[in-house]
Amino acid sequence: MAVTVVKIGGNVIDNAEALERFVKDFAELPSPKILIHGGGKLATALSTKLGIETHMIDGRRITDKETLDVVTMVYAGLVNKNIVAKLQREGCNAIGLSGADADVIPAARRSPHPVDYGYVGDINASQVNVDVLKMLLLAGITPVFCALTHDGKGSMLNSNADSVASAVAVAATALGEVDLVFCLELAGVMLDIDNPDSMISEIDESSYTRLRNDGVITKGMIPKIDNAFKAIHQGVSRVIIKHAENLVRDIGTIIH
Amino acid sequence: MAVTVVKIGGNVIDNAEALERFVKDFAELPSPKILIHGGGKLATALSTKLGIETHMIDGRRITDKETLDVVTMVYAGLVNKNIVAKLQREGCNAIGLSGADADVIPAARRSPHPVDYGYVGDINASQVNVDVLKMLLLAGITPVFCALTHDGKGSMLNSNADSVASAVAVAATALGEVDLVFCLELAGVMLDIDNPDSMISEIDESSYTRLRNDGVITKGMIPKIDNAFKAIHQGVSRVIIKHAENLVRDIGTIIH
Repeated sequence: MAVTVVKIGGNVIDNAEALERFVKDFAELPSPKILIHGGGKLATALSTKLGIETHMIDGRRITDKETLDVVTMVYAGLVNKNIVAKLQREGCNAIGLSGADADVIPAARRSPHPVDYGYVGDINASQVNVDVLKMLLLAGITPVFCALTHDGKGSMLNSNADSVASAVAVAATALGEVDLVFCLELAGVMLDIDNPDSMISEIDESSYTRLRNDGVITKGMIPKIDNAFKAIHQGVSRVIIKHAENLVRDIGTIIH
Repeated sequence: MAVTVVKIGGNVIDNAEALERFVKDFAELPSPKILIHGGGKLATALSTKLGIETHMIDGRRITDKETLDVVTMVYAGLVNKNIVAKLQREGCNAIGLSGADADVIPAARRSPHPVDYGYVGDINASQVNVDVLKMLLLAGITPVFCALTHDGKGSMLNSNADSVASAVAVAATALGEVDLVFCLELAGVMLDIDNPDSMISEIDESSYTRLRNDGVITKGMIPKIDNAFKAIHQGVSRVIIKHAENLVRDIGTIIH
């Protein structure tokens, strides 16, 4: 079976209108398909309301026990179940999962040396339980993952949503061709960020090297495209970077 | 297959030590099995911290939108995923679900007349999606339900955990013999609440009528036993009322 894996982030989750539109579009996408969602700003908002201090080291957030509880509430509870209920309304038989559920995504808690980031889980795509994904997809059920995993020792872990999406996509290659779609706030990778007509329709490794050397692809886009090629080297057919609004349209940058 | 359905409430969920013990015992129970958990006091504690007022009518809580969000966070997020992660640690391949997930438990929002209880869902056992339960149980996966359902129109609903347990148990009778275990703070139904040695080991309908007429079974126990007989009339083999500490022991009241 050919599987589509879609990842959405805060720009969809935090915007009620964008989320409504996305849910309708995602329900329309042909199955089998898998959704991975980030958490958006709701977890930070809840932490603030609860007076939980955010601890950062070198600009990166520390997931202490209190923060783990907040993200478990917001990502696996509020955000995940609201998306599932909306998808059900649209006739998409969604099932909301964390990586702990049916042990689909075990993770290793990141080493506390040199920096202890707390309850953060690193994922190895080879450990994703693809049999459970296969069973659900063959039954016509659409998995919807939040970016939480578990350590197998009784604790949930906070993981990076892009990494969850990549790992799930790589694991799904055992079932057939996989397209991995990252929904960003951009229509795709742009030659000139100020020119909306300058989207690059396709990137392969030779054009990527050139674009990076020419300074066209910079900053935050570099790790995203590096991750895309990493997924492709592990068997994913295409990584597509597009705006969530264009989910069901052929507008976006295809990395292959 | 013979299925065991176990329901736990606040006395287990709110007590870290009792929960640890329960998780170990539940993991030991022979499969196939299904767990249903209530929410405990965490939702009320979170509402209080967030300054959300609790609205009551005739002593019953109203689930307004803010309260629905809180219970979705606490029941489907924090409580459900922590139980699942702990069961995974014990080698029990648990999957945490709300009724929205895979549309397992659709519900009807309760009529706003004469009293509008808000986002509260009433369940009809005949609408429980037993095919999904069967698929999971046959795969060696143990469903762990929180007491949330959905209306099929995009909204989660708050449901009574005892009702979820009964509906799931009745639906599971399509798969074989079902035992439904309600874990209470009591060892079972007592002849004399002040005498711990006075537990009634078995109740059938004729002894129930007698015990109720004699004033032995009163107050809060009456709806519980009425519900037990209702489940039995719908095909459940036995309803067992016991203390969570005795989960893996033959100590409790058997209603048949």
